Amino acid sequence: MSAPFPSANALSPSSGRFIEGVHHFPVRIYFEDTDAGGIVYHANYLRYMERARSDMLRLLGIDQRASIETGEGVYAVTRVEIEYRAPAKLDDDLIVVSRMERVSGATVTIAQQVMRGEVLLTEAAVTVAFITPEGRPKRQPRAWVEIYKSITNGEPVLS
Amino acid sequence: MSAPFPSANALSPSSGRFIEGVHHFPVRIYFEDTDAGGIVYHANYLRYMERARSDMLRLLGIDQRASIETGEGVYAVTRVEIEYRAPAKLDDDLIVVSRMERVSGATVTIAQQVMRGEVLLTEAAVTVAFITPEGRPKRQPRAWVEIYKSITNGEPVLS
Amino acid sequence: MSAPFPSANALSPSSGRFIEGVHHFPVRIYFEDTDAGGIVYHANYLRYMERARSDMLRLLGIDQRASIETGEGVYAVTRVEIEYRAPAKLDDDLIVVSRMERVSGATVTIAQQVMRGEVLLTEAAVTVAFITPEGRPKRQPRAWVEIYKSITNGEPVLS
Amino acid sequence: MSAPFPSANALSPSSGRFIEGVHHFPVRIYFEDTDAGGIVYHANYLRYMERARSDMLRLLGIDQRASIETGEGVYAVTRVEIEYRAPAKLDDDLIVVSRMERVSGATVTIAQQVMRGEVLLTEAAVTVAFITPEGRPKRQPRAWVEIYKSITNGEPVLS
Repeated sequence: MSAPFPSANALSPSSGRFIEGVHHFPVRIYFEDTDAGGIVYHANYLRYMERARSDMLRLLGIDQRASIETGEGVYAVTRVEIEYRAPAKLDDDLIVVSRMERVSGATVTIAQQVMRGEVLLTEAAVTVAFITPEGRPKRQPRAWVEIYKSITNGEPVLS
Repeated sequence: MSAPFPSANALSPSSGRFIEGVHHFPVRIYFEDTDAGGIVYHANYLRYMERARSDMLRLLGIDQRASIETGEGVYAVTRVEIEYRAPAKLDDDLIVVSRMERVSGATVTIAQQVMRGEVLLTEAAVTVAFITPEGRPKRQPRAWVEIYKSITNGEPVLS
Repeated sequence: MSAPFPSANALSPSSGRFIEGVHHFPVRIYFEDTDAGGIVYHANYLRYMERARSDMLRLLGIDQRASIETGEGVYAVTRVEIEYRAPAKLDDDLIVVSRMERVSGATVTIAQQVMRGEVLLTEAAVTVAFITPEGRPKRQPRAWVEIYKSITNGEPVLS
Repeated sequence: MSAPFPSANALSPSSGRFIEGVHHFPVRIYFEDTDAGGIVYHANYLRYMERARSDMLRLLGIDQRASIETGEGVYAVTRVEIEYRAPAKLDDDLIVVSRMERVSGATVTIAQQVMRGEVLLTEAAVTVAFITPEGRPKRQPRAWVEIYKSITNGEPVLS
């Protein structure tokens, strides 16, 4: 019998895309995300922003899991400034928009916005630093820095 | 200039599909999902299973948020039996496979499996009951029960 | 029979204290708090800070649950600036130190620090606004504002 | 100047106690624990039960963090059966009651109940297995098994 429905193999998780150097990543809101106030719990937006950053690295060919497992290092968040303008609710479909703002030897600052359609819900600047497994600051792999700089310079991303 | 990249409008969050009456839902593992043991924290599989059940209802045209907001009622989990066979790790792509097993007036039992490719990671039977906003058991909307029964009878799902 | 062990009734959850107008709240780190990097997931510090603010209100005699249930209103976080200086790890005992910084008609800004002994791990300024159940800004109950102002003025807290 | 308030050093996080071989652990419910249904999100009870088990090990002198850091091994949950009887809500004070039920070379089964006063909210049987850092099953340290057996035999716990 020919399969009348798409194969499960065709299913893949939410994945973002670079559009003219800016990363777009979709998120849907489930019960786990909300609180008794009826809206998304404020700390959870940091989770969506981290998902978007991880997806961005993955699209750029950077393997965070391998970097941890080989002892190379891992990114740690060092600073967040976040403004909450309007709340997300159960079943909302959101887009996290991420722009690389500043790249130094050891840190990257990313500007991130959570949008529901044209409505800006939350806006943040997030700085991450590369650290050793023991937690000491460390220069990022040079190849990664080159990739980040080419994005901030507006070069096209192959993905 | 014509847009060389897909529009952000084309982006949508992870969504599942019914394949011959069985619901398949993709999940990717992020840092938030893991713990210091290096694997996914055990309680989080219940979150993935709830996401899959919510997606299943959404595909069936059932609007949980409206049901809460109008005071109609909400599903509450009443029983879970879950076996953990193998751990998921950072960056894994998983599929949650869900089958409606039993439908009564007030409850539904769903068999759910979390798979990584062909490998079964976690297996559960989850029973949910419909309750009023005050927490009292209540019969599910008749139309919903009809939909569930048609699925358990193997009738095709329009989605 | 004489009870050889303390009664379960004597057990109570973590609770904070005001010490000279500054609120101190203890937190222990469990597996759920950590991630595959071996340290506490960055978004979770916002949870500890919210626990501390809720405990502070409770000690001041303010009942957030009643305020939601009667439709009076609820606090929503509108802005966070947070710096991560050193990571917390599994089994750590932390103290969240909270100071009321600014009180206006509709908002309160609280300075919060997460300490492990004498070591400052994380430092934040958190602004919350009072909103209606529909999400519109609203003046805080006058009695609450009086309480907050007496604390920021250094008056002793009865707790 | 004599300190009019208790020292911050006197503050410590929630900690449980053994009462006649049964472990009791207090939990308070915060916004992070609830969902848009107005009650505690079902997966979170597994977090409270894990906190209680970790506290139980700590009281017994077992150091899970050292066991991970030295590569000795870590407990992984292999099976949970849980029934939800009544919901917890914001600000509730709960007690997690834990009894060691069965101890084998590689696994332990613990019966756990979440109580609000005299009301049973949730009841579970949780089985954990000791595994290597690579995820392979491994016998538990012999000294730990001896401790567990003495508890299940009703011997007094020094804590």
